[in-house]
Amino acid sequence: MCELLGMNCNVPTDICFSFTGFQARGGATDVHGDGWGIAFFEGRGVRVFLDPQPSSRSPVAELVRRYPIHSLNVIAHIRKATQGPVGLENTHPFMRELWGRYWIFAHNGNLDAYAPELDGSFLPVGQTDSERCFCHLLQTLRRRFPDAPPERLVLLRALEDFAAQARAHGPFNFLLSNGDCLFAHRSTELYYIIRQAPFAVAHLKDQDVAVDFSELTSAQDRVALIVTQPLTDNETWIPLPTERVVMFADGVYHAA
Amino acid sequence: MCELLGMNCNVPTDICFSFTGFQARGGATDVHGDGWGIAFFEGRGVRVFLDPQPSSRSPVAELVRRYPIHSLNVIAHIRKATQGPVGLENTHPFMRELWGRYWIFAHNGNLDAYAPELDGSFLPVGQTDSERCFCHLLQTLRRRFPDAPPERLVLLRALEDFAAQARAHGPFNFLLSNGDCLFAHRSTELYYIIRQAPFAVAHLKDQDVAVDFSELTSAQDRVALIVTQPLTDNETWIPLPTERVVMFADGVYHAA
Repeated sequence: MCELLGMNCNVPTDICFSFTGFQARGGATDVHGDGWGIAFFEGRGVRVFLDPQPSSRSPVAELVRRYPIHSLNVIAHIRKATQGPVGLENTHPFMRELWGRYWIFAHNGNLDAYAPELDGSFLPVGQTDSERCFCHLLQTLRRRFPDAPPERLVLLRALEDFAAQARAHGPFNFLLSNGDCLFAHRSTELYYIIRQAPFAVAHLKDQDVAVDFSELTSAQDRVALIVTQPLTDNETWIPLPTERVVMFADGVYHAA
Repeated sequence: MCELLGMNCNVPTDICFSFTGFQARGGATDVHGDGWGIAFFEGRGVRVFLDPQPSSRSPVAELVRRYPIHSLNVIAHIRKATQGPVGLENTHPFMRELWGRYWIFAHNGNLDAYAPELDGSFLPVGQTDSERCFCHLLQTLRRRFPDAPPERLVLLRALEDFAAQARAHGPFNFLLSNGDCLFAHRSTELYYIIRQAPFAVAHLKDQDVAVDFSELTSAQDRVALIVTQPLTDNETWIPLPTERVVMFADGVYHAA
């Protein structure tokens, strides 16, 4: 299984600290050595860094760890290949454009015999069940809403409907963002935490690194982190509800 | 005006040498300081590095210059903003998926009053004439060919038709690739060179850096480079024909 990491904030925040612990799991402290990727939204734009190499040995991961890109929505993924060979075209997260916004998707799980009918509007480039599912998801959204729905909650409910049919095929933990908010769905494992005032010291589980967020933040900051396995050993990570799509917007948790 | 750099080869090749000279033009030896980007195809996958900072000061450009990514098709762009503010969503090259392949597009020029009717299948995320044109191009291709045409030359002729109407709006130098081959169109400035045996020493125009390709290549290698302005001062760069779309495949030049 793969590992997911997501961040949603109310002020542009860098993910260097969390990424340090996460990166170590790609081949160093854990077995997920089949590539990794991370996407940072900045306004409507998005930067995606992908590397089919293990993240613990990747020069691109080293850049990401050291270069503080400030973002409201981040999605990262470390891969342990199930369907589709190791290669760039099968490296998450995947990106497409819908309604004039970029969409970013990463999946942890395995969808068995998932062969949706695709009409050609979004087609997979690689061979993973995950990318096929992402294409199906966007096709489903566009058919239901020719234009972007004005309300985030309308989108959330449509995603709940989609997730209900997809998870019948197997474990379907995913993170999805259009740069405005971040959606998460847990089948098996997914935790979150919201860091806000009063901020404290956090200590990584995978490396002996700590950071005092009270020195780096202001009283209004809210940062939600969503991960497959808790990243720190001195904070309380909350399991997401199973088989529900939830939404993080401006660092706040929302359920339909 | 912006600067374009493209590479098409018959064996995966790194672009570190050419990128060294090109990068210097983004704010150091030239005025193109409004961001830059580069896309590397690796198989069907593609990695896009974007930075709204000038390339001469960008940590991401530094990574690209030092990390030899081997690719058959590369497109890079340094921006001097004309339409659309400086920002990540307006940074070239742009990426979309069509027929289950990624397509990468970068444009140098300015299309005046270019407001094609877009049906929603591909919509711009940013505000540039370039991205709008790219969306229109892909929409036009998909309407004409519901499935990918089996012959590259069929695609080349369709691109010629498209370019003929778009360049009526203004300068339209572009590079386009789907990872299989690279298309180029010159309105005003675009040069190419094909490096092949016998290989020799090349010396950059923008920096005092030389490389002896005979030490790095084998007799069968063919590397086509396409640029706005010649990168070296001791090689013969050939102007592309104006108002024609040409194609580079396996390091070979083709015209319709």
